[in-house]
Amino acid sequence: MFKQNPNQSPHQVVIVGGGFGGLYAAQALHKAPVNVTLIDKRNFHLFQPLLYQVATGGLSPGDISSPLRAVLSRQKNAKVLMGEVIDIDPQGHQVKLKDKILPYDTLIVATGVSHHYFGNDQWAPKAPGLKTVEDALEMRRRILLAFEAAEQETDSQKRRGWLTFVIVGGGPTGVELAGALAELAYSTLKQDFRTIDTSETQIILLEGIDRVLPPYPAELSAKAKASLEHLGVKVQTNALVTNIEDEGVTIRRGEQIEQIPTKTVLWAAGMKASVMGEVISKSTGAKLDRAGRVIVNPDLSVADYSNIFVIGDLANFPHQFEDGKPLPGVAPVAMQEGQYVANLIHKRLNDETLPPFRYSDYGSLAVIGRNAAVVDLGFAKFSGFLAWLAWIFVHIFFLIEFDNKLIVMVQWGWSYFTRNRGARLITTPEVWPPMVVEEKRDQEIRDRALI
Amino acid sequence: MFKQNPNQSPHQVVIVGGGFGGLYAAQALHKAPVNVTLIDKRNFHLFQPLLYQVATGGLSPGDISSPLRAVLSRQKNAKVLMGEVIDIDPQGHQVKLKDKILPYDTLIVATGVSHHYFGNDQWAPKAPGLKTVEDALEMRRRILLAFEAAEQETDSQKRRGWLTFVIVGGGPTGVELAGALAELAYSTLKQDFRTIDTSETQIILLEGIDRVLPPYPAELSAKAKASLEHLGVKVQTNALVTNIEDEGVTIRRGEQIEQIPTKTVLWAAGMKASVMGEVISKSTGAKLDRAGRVIVNPDLSVADYSNIFVIGDLANFPHQFEDGKPLPGVAPVAMQEGQYVANLIHKRLNDETLPPFRYSDYGSLAVIGRNAAVVDLGFAKFSGFLAWLAWIFVHIFFLIEFDNKLIVMVQWGWSYFTRNRGARLITTPEVWPPMVVEEKRDQEIRDRALI
Repeated sequence: MFKQNPNQSPHQVVIVGGGFGGLYAAQALHKAPVNVTLIDKRNFHLFQPLLYQVATGGLSPGDISSPLRAVLSRQKNAKVLMGEVIDIDPQGHQVKLKDKILPYDTLIVATGVSHHYFGNDQWAPKAPGLKTVEDALEMRRRILLAFEAAEQETDSQKRRGWLTFVIVGGGPTGVELAGALAELAYSTLKQDFRTIDTSETQIILLEGIDRVLPPYPAELSAKAKASLEHLGVKVQTNALVTNIEDEGVTIRRGEQIEQIPTKTVLWAAGMKASVMGEVISKSTGAKLDRAGRVIVNPDLSVADYSNIFVIGDLANFPHQFEDGKPLPGVAPVAMQEGQYVANLIHKRLNDETLPPFRYSDYGSLAVIGRNAAVVDLGFAKFSGFLAWLAWIFVHIFFLIEFDNKLIVMVQWGWSYFTRNRGARLITTPEVWPPMVVEEKRDQEIRDRALI
Repeated sequence: MFKQNPNQSPHQVVIVGGGFGGLYAAQALHKAPVNVTLIDKRNFHLFQPLLYQVATGGLSPGDISSPLRAVLSRQKNAKVLMGEVIDIDPQGHQVKLKDKILPYDTLIVATGVSHHYFGNDQWAPKAPGLKTVEDALEMRRRILLAFEAAEQETDSQKRRGWLTFVIVGGGPTGVELAGALAELAYSTLKQDFRTIDTSETQIILLEGIDRVLPPYPAELSAKAKASLEHLGVKVQTNALVTNIEDEGVTIRRGEQIEQIPTKTVLWAAGMKASVMGEVISKSTGAKLDRAGRVIVNPDLSVADYSNIFVIGDLANFPHQFEDGKPLPGVAPVAMQEGQYVANLIHKRLNDETLPPFRYSDYGSLAVIGRNAAVVDLGFAKFSGFLAWLAWIFVHIFFLIEFDNKLIVMVQWGWSYFTRNRGARLITTPEVWPPMVVEEKRDQEIRDRALI
């Protein structure tokens, strides 16, 4: 099953998904005697860990994205195909796109996960998630429009609703979003309004279990909570959302039912595998976990197909821990999985093999705001300014393209000293109450000549 | 008519539009004993002269925008109101917004112009213009998708259509867009594709009269044309567009009718006053010119209302030149008009007056691409690298916020040395053939923790 083509043309590797897993797999194959085709619906790799910075006006989408073609332009054995895979044929060694069919010798699927609403999809329009650039711009628009609406609102109770932000989910996304929102409200926007006092903004972070950052050790969760509260965020643990409506959120804490009046709910909870999980399960017989992720073999292949791999967030890798707990859905896992599979493909072509995949955990990092973060290196846990510096360094280090690193560094250096957030644009034509933003405005119109 | 309120509360200045004219007027009033309210439909000032850089992936929208509130945050006598003015009452001294009424003592209207299609509005969806951030992102999407479509197209004639870009209008916008597009196709994307050769891209600039950059002296027009042709742009003068369809553009050159097969048409021609022009004409009796611009008095007031001013692109100021030709619709005119009106308001409050407005023309600049520009300083005309440096300097100098200047400088420095354009994202959910870009993608999804 794992062999060269009959006509001895190079081994064809098809990778579906240009996130951390897929892109790192493609790059790690640069010296292998293979042809790589990387398929993605989008034309860019997104540095998703910084998406919350776009949602809060600190960075522009272009700052945290790299065109896939640019990243792979010098890798002559790799090509990029913009398109969407809708089916695979494991027997026929083919992936099916909307308008074409592509043969493969080895297939790597890395299409990740999206957020979901625990069976309450009707909440989606009221509480946008944060997975795509469009999601982030929608969050940014709602956050900024809420302050504009509050400035114009004369009813004090309604104004309070506009100035209350509820974030659902106390994982890294929710924590980082809450911290950035606190800085936006309490520092950046402080001087900007004349009627409202933005220091009256309420930011409420809801988490269903008893502490924030559940994947981290308990002491770091406690530090994160303290840091958030220091920034002005109200952290409510053991709080389950039971309803989301236009005027507020209903939560249950133990026996207590509580209403939080708010106009802005941001969703940072729930995870559901992308549709490719089901496609793979149906065609290969691979088992899925409850979230729809594909349970993979110790070498990241699936079911009886040694030439089909699933990596990154879409994979459930239960072989590392004794209790069968899957590896966490974080970028470093995806990167290492991508590199492992690339390595395995290369070895196999030389009739060699590799021991099963093992994730090397170098630690975890989460940022809580300007000057505060928590770091868990396994042998050491620390928080505060040093952790924040570590976080900055790591994030900039992993930004794929050098010019992005430079831009983000300048942006951050500047934001750090001025507490300014420059990318505070309300864009996208979609109409949302209460302010109608028209698609075409007929002002700020100039010719291109300028002295 | 020009007096303090009966109750001696400060003189109320209402400014409609936060472009160059409106924003400069607001800022120039910072020492005047007045209250300023700046109304805009959007929450940011757009540095419109650089919008073509967004359309071609060189800059992000956030890089060329400044939140109006941030720009005016320290000016304690100014406030910003996000909203849309739909009518004015010159007798009652009121402007009417959708949901409120605002009194004024002095009104400044600076809502600019938009593009139009010479009575062929059906061309709008086929040939997007370049006036708003959304316009620029739509252009960027079409340009980048055209290359993606060409890469996948097997029919050579159709591929040619995807690789042909037609820009309608040889003014500064068209010229700068053509130059940037040439750099994108012939340098930036050169290594990025495997099937197509982007050097086969055709960029055709159509101009209705006999030379590009009509407002400039003929010798600079000739130099601009030579620079464009050196970059690989085909410049066709005396070419009138008679039809735009899905598969191409029909033009007439003298007696000749010609078909240009193309999938991408970019509109950089035509100008029409914003609706406020008509509102002012109806309520004050001010005359409009053929493009709908308000013909203003020598002090920029309108009709018999000494406390209503129209400035910027929306104003037709016919008093400077002997032939009655209006001042050009460029940023420096708008800035100087804004400052003049601010100054006049301040003087009148001290029972002083000012001589009529006069525009001081320090020259014009247009850029043709990396390393080439044309400059007309009146006493000197030059082009080439020196002109390019002057253009860079002036554009960065006028970027409103300092952090934007820094970012744009780093971006440009980097782009200059690498010919890289980092902001090459295909975004916005709107579906456009031939590639369906789905709103939500379910990949590239990561948790926010990262070692």
